[in-house]
Amino acid sequence: MLNQTPALDLLFQALADPTRRAIVERLSRGPASVSDLAAPFAMSLPAIVQHLAVLETSGAVSSSKTGRVRTCRIEPNGLRAAEQWIATRRASWERRLDRLDAYLHKMKHLEARDGNKH
Amino acid sequence: MLNQTPALDLLFQALADPTRRAIVERLSRGPASVSDLAAPFAMSLPAIVQHLAVLETSGAVSSSKTGRVRTCRIEPNGLRAAEQWIATRRASWERRLDRLDAYLHKMKHLEARDGNKH
Repeated sequence: MLNQTPALDLLFQALADPTRRAIVERLSRGPASVSDLAAPFAMSLPAIVQHLAVLETSGAVSSSKTGRVRTCRIEPNGLRAAEQWIATRRASWERRLDRLDAYLHKMKHLEARDGNKH
Repeated sequence: MLNQTPALDLLFQALADPTRRAIVERLSRGPASVSDLAAPFAMSLPAIVQHLAVLETSGAVSSSKTGRVRTCRIEPNGLRAAEQWIATRRASWERRLDRLDAYLHKMKHLEARDGNKH
């Protein structure tokens, strides 16, 4: 559970590519067909389809087919899993820094008080 | 700026490996020496050093050397960049869903009102 292998492997791997991030960026503004997604890229349709397959396998994107058109959309739960994994570790580290800061502050205060006694 | 290539490539790539995530997990509880980090893994020290190099290059982790001991720590700004990239796209998608929901709600309301008129 802790590191959710291999789900997180696939999610972070999917997001490690600039074309795939650009696809997620585009889909964050609304669902789009595969050919709409391919249009802005100087890339073959099969290459885009391959990138979409990586995104779908990772759980960041889903798609459905109506007639001959496949429509892709964001899967917020997939993205949230990757986001929360990072957020939890960062928050844990920052809480640790806060505690350290509070401790140093207390030590300084005690030292100042003891200094006044002597 | 939008997709911050190659910084985000390196960050997501760094997090796509379970050993490197376990290292980040360990470091989120406090700084550690390279040998402390290596201890829980059934892996050679050079392999761990290699994983640490990937994490350092990505900006998720930093290290400093005192005498013969290299100490590693989390770089919260690095992690935050990856986290915020995801959060922004997810939030944008969710806002879109909210607007769509509000629109459908309004349409239903208008339809019900018009239905009452006739």
